[in-house]
Amino acid sequence: MQKKKDSLPDIQRTKDRRGISINRVGVENIDFPLLIATKDKREVLVYAKVDLFSSLKHGVKGTNMSRFIETLMKYRYDVMNKENLEHFLRALKKKLGNVKDVYTRINFKYFIKKTSPISKKESVMSYDCTFECKLSKRFHFKLKTKVLTTSNCPCSKEISKYGAHGQRSRSTVTVEPMKGTKVWIEDIIEIVENAGSCEVYPLLKRTDEKYVTEKAYMNPKFVEDTARDIAVALQQLKTIRWFRVKVCNEESIHPHDAVCYVERHKKGKRWRKYSGSLRKIT
Amino acid sequence: MQKKKDSLPDIQRTKDRRGISINRVGVENIDFPLLIATKDKREVLVYAKVDLFSSLKHGVKGTNMSRFIETLMKYRYDVMNKENLEHFLRALKKKLGNVKDVYTRINFKYFIKKTSPISKKESVMSYDCTFECKLSKRFHFKLKTKVLTTSNCPCSKEISKYGAHGQRSRSTVTVEPMKGTKVWIEDIIEIVENAGSCEVYPLLKRTDEKYVTEKAYMNPKFVEDTARDIAVALQQLKTIRWFRVKVCNEESIHPHDAVCYVERHKKGKRWRKYSGSLRKIT
Amino acid sequence: MQKKKDSLPDIQRTKDRRGISINRVGVENIDFPLLIATKDKREVLVYAKVDLFSSLKHGVKGTNMSRFIETLMKYRYDVMNKENLEHFLRALKKKLGNVKDVYTRINFKYFIKKTSPISKKESVMSYDCTFECKLSKRFHFKLKTKVLTTSNCPCSKEISKYGAHGQRSRSTVTVEPMKGTKVWIEDIIEIVENAGSCEVYPLLKRTDEKYVTEKAYMNPKFVEDTARDIAVALQQLKTIRWFRVKVCNEESIHPHDAVCYVERHKKGKRWRKYSGSLRKIT
Amino acid sequence: MQKKKDSLPDIQRTKDRRGISINRVGVENIDFPLLIATKDKREVLVYAKVDLFSSLKHGVKGTNMSRFIETLMKYRYDVMNKENLEHFLRALKKKLGNVKDVYTRINFKYFIKKTSPISKKESVMSYDCTFECKLSKRFHFKLKTKVLTTSNCPCSKEISKYGAHGQRSRSTVTVEPMKGTKVWIEDIIEIVENAGSCEVYPLLKRTDEKYVTEKAYMNPKFVEDTARDIAVALQQLKTIRWFRVKVCNEESIHPHDAVCYVERHKKGKRWRKYSGSLRKIT
Repeated sequence: MQKKKDSLPDIQRTKDRRGISINRVGVENIDFPLLIATKDKREVLVYAKVDLFSSLKHGVKGTNMSRFIETLMKYRYDVMNKENLEHFLRALKKKLGNVKDVYTRINFKYFIKKTSPISKKESVMSYDCTFECKLSKRFHFKLKTKVLTTSNCPCSKEISKYGAHGQRSRSTVTVEPMKGTKVWIEDIIEIVENAGSCEVYPLLKRTDEKYVTEKAYMNPKFVEDTARDIAVALQQLKTIRWFRVKVCNEESIHPHDAVCYVERHKKGKRWRKYSGSLRKIT
Repeated sequence: MQKKKDSLPDIQRTKDRRGISINRVGVENIDFPLLIATKDKREVLVYAKVDLFSSLKHGVKGTNMSRFIETLMKYRYDVMNKENLEHFLRALKKKLGNVKDVYTRINFKYFIKKTSPISKKESVMSYDCTFECKLSKRFHFKLKTKVLTTSNCPCSKEISKYGAHGQRSRSTVTVEPMKGTKVWIEDIIEIVENAGSCEVYPLLKRTDEKYVTEKAYMNPKFVEDTARDIAVALQQLKTIRWFRVKVCNEESIHPHDAVCYVERHKKGKRWRKYSGSLRKIT
Repeated sequence: MQKKKDSLPDIQRTKDRRGISINRVGVENIDFPLLIATKDKREVLVYAKVDLFSSLKHGVKGTNMSRFIETLMKYRYDVMNKENLEHFLRALKKKLGNVKDVYTRINFKYFIKKTSPISKKESVMSYDCTFECKLSKRFHFKLKTKVLTTSNCPCSKEISKYGAHGQRSRSTVTVEPMKGTKVWIEDIIEIVENAGSCEVYPLLKRTDEKYVTEKAYMNPKFVEDTARDIAVALQQLKTIRWFRVKVCNEESIHPHDAVCYVERHKKGKRWRKYSGSLRKIT
Repeated sequence: MQKKKDSLPDIQRTKDRRGISINRVGVENIDFPLLIATKDKREVLVYAKVDLFSSLKHGVKGTNMSRFIETLMKYRYDVMNKENLEHFLRALKKKLGNVKDVYTRINFKYFIKKTSPISKKESVMSYDCTFECKLSKRFHFKLKTKVLTTSNCPCSKEISKYGAHGQRSRSTVTVEPMKGTKVWIEDIIEIVENAGSCEVYPLLKRTDEKYVTEKAYMNPKFVEDTARDIAVALQQLKTIRWFRVKVCNEESIHPHDAVCYVERHKKGKRWRKYSGSLRKIT
């Protein structure tokens, strides 16, 4: 195994004869700091987990992984709004050379100030968000936002002399904005928080706790109710062309979860059920 | 809030006027014991995490969650092969009444005996598997299998005087069998283990460790190589009509992973690249 | 780097001169099938994640990892009660040679039949359990059991006109039995299920849901209440000498959890607060 | 269940008669933004997961959870060095009133600039860190830092004609500084990165990859070697009085991990093996 090399060969570039083009190849789970533009026109630092992919032609043995990282690192501590994300993917496509499309997923925690409903105490709360982007012939962009609410069960309330079982409800909303429009994380959060039995808060004094308990009890929602109310609100937005809603109630009376999915896309002026096959939601 | 009820009303069945039909609603993360048929004609107990869904018409407020569990529980400790899974989904569809389609995902650990390559020492090793089933007009079935291998980097080997960086490689292979055919977990495992730089084993004595070290070094594979070799082998199976391969190398020289996806379906006698949009692999 | 070897040297056995004896060294996350003895005298198959450790003297470079696995694999599909665990650790200690102590942690899911409270419908439910064993001068054994219950908040109930916020409550109870005594998983589960606002069940029909909703509402518990009620019940057992209780309420009105720890050991006939330093519960 | 309340009763403060004092009660998993002081005298924003606890006397029914959050929220976006952490815990203790001790755990990602070894390309890399603090009679502080390295196996190298199996190695180092001294995250990272077979980097060009491959191959380390080399380096620090090291090699030839723990504390001028019982490292 005597090896001695002065110049370093580039194995990735050698010819591949298996005839298998690759849908996506790249890197996942890169820790990465960047700035996010907020609805109130600030720029906030977030620490993201980033995934980057490109397609790869059948005749090329391997992609050049270091170019993914090298291109990404130029944007560290930079603002990553929709425009810059497209700019970034164009730079990556150019750097990689002969590829048809490039993708990125950027997962981060986004903090928002919360004020308790009655005592008006301030705290901060974080929401898990994701930007999903693809650059092929055109640039595609999706925003995913996860929002916690409290849920109270309408059936349990109706059939019981008192009380109603309650639990954490986790909603995940993914939207694809119309070309040229913007959707703010803040708007999605507001839609979901209005669709649960009640908002959740990090800080609640007793007067607040009374308020949220009574509000949730008077506003019971099945997992289907929350999903539908989110869907109805999303359909009223002029700015989106596709969405998927997942609501997961971590049932307090069961060891398993109750889950609901709704997916829609716009055809002309009308919203249609997205004809999902099994692989769509898996 | 004076409530007193003798008969229990069924809130789920009340009319819903929001006009939003639901793609999927049901339960996730049910712990469940069942039997799996093995290639060598035994039946082995596994403990699964089960998800169950159905569609729901726009006019119905809520599904009947307890019917999902009730139907499932009848199959506890029962054999869940492809035939029984179809039987189970037909029973669930009937029980739920007026629904268009029902789904299940069944995740479990599957144990296989491993013999070390030189010293022939026996041990057992587990593989994460999933059955994904859908019953709409016809019955759809997919099998997902996760297999660990070791990977050595061809570039690192070529450019270095000695050594080559190695790491764990995690492959996830999902296949859809042709109608009327069977694909065994054991066959998928064999395909993946042949496509890595070397198999992994729970128990290796020194003679075995020498063998696997040398074999991996002489058989370096990029993440693209492993994915392509799996794809080539899958394409030779007459029994499948669609597959997706994900290979993830947990790079030992980086804090992030190298990842590759290949997805194909069969059109007539030819395998075609599946024209994935962003949402397909997300 | 010309290497050619006919006999294989044993690097692990070479002399180490750093003067650092090792508290524990071994293997973690071994997938392993074994049998557990149940309270009703059956033997049930479980699939465990196993960790194995030993101490290592300062002068020895490395332990012999394959001996851990080799010894363990002899017990696959075997009954692992307290007696066999001691037998296993003695075999491991002998196999490893010159070590002062050996340890194992065995994590598994344990299934129990559940009957819904009113409709008497049967289902199965799983509980995460762990055996922790150490063999030094004597054999030490601990049993850890995780049990889900539902919790309703007493404060929320008291201050609100109607309703009370409810949520999943996760209790983790670890006990050390007295020498020569046995503690059954089933007994710990019963203690915890009695200490929550209400038990949880996989399968509940409407009459059952009414029962659990009303029972939980009439039986509200702070996280401290559940922890104390578990502690009181454990202190009445003659069979244990030490315990630690963790109760975690996944608050439905907050994005964070409410958590309580109680740890006690027996000195003579009296239970004493375990004088935990920071590192004890961390 | 007619309830109508004008003033809100404080259930937590009611008398408890079970006689069970509580070791710790509080809140876990609070998302929280704060500033960390760096070794090079900057202040960087991090997003932490925070846990907060206090002891609770036997006669008091419940703690006041909202006071934990209220006190914490005053420090949002504030610098949390050792001094401020003590200040924060003193404020919490005062706010809670009659409690003996209070604790906090603060988990965050900490970013550091990395320069590739040969091509000198810049990137950023994150490390998981934790501050653990307790205020009882005095203030206790611990720092936990997780560092990834690459490991090559000395046995595999020695017995094989070529190559050596390599993998990710995850080290977790927890230290307790001497009273009045400071330990920087940066110092712990440097110690661990020197103790692995080689550092890992987000960005490596081919010349760098050659360097890290060859360095790792020429510098093989068992999990015990890395743990001991970290321990030797920590013992030379004058600033610490206790440490625990965990090294976990994610073996590329096995489905399980190789793990090593070393724990020491200083008695006078000498380092002693910490006489861990089973519960210490569990």
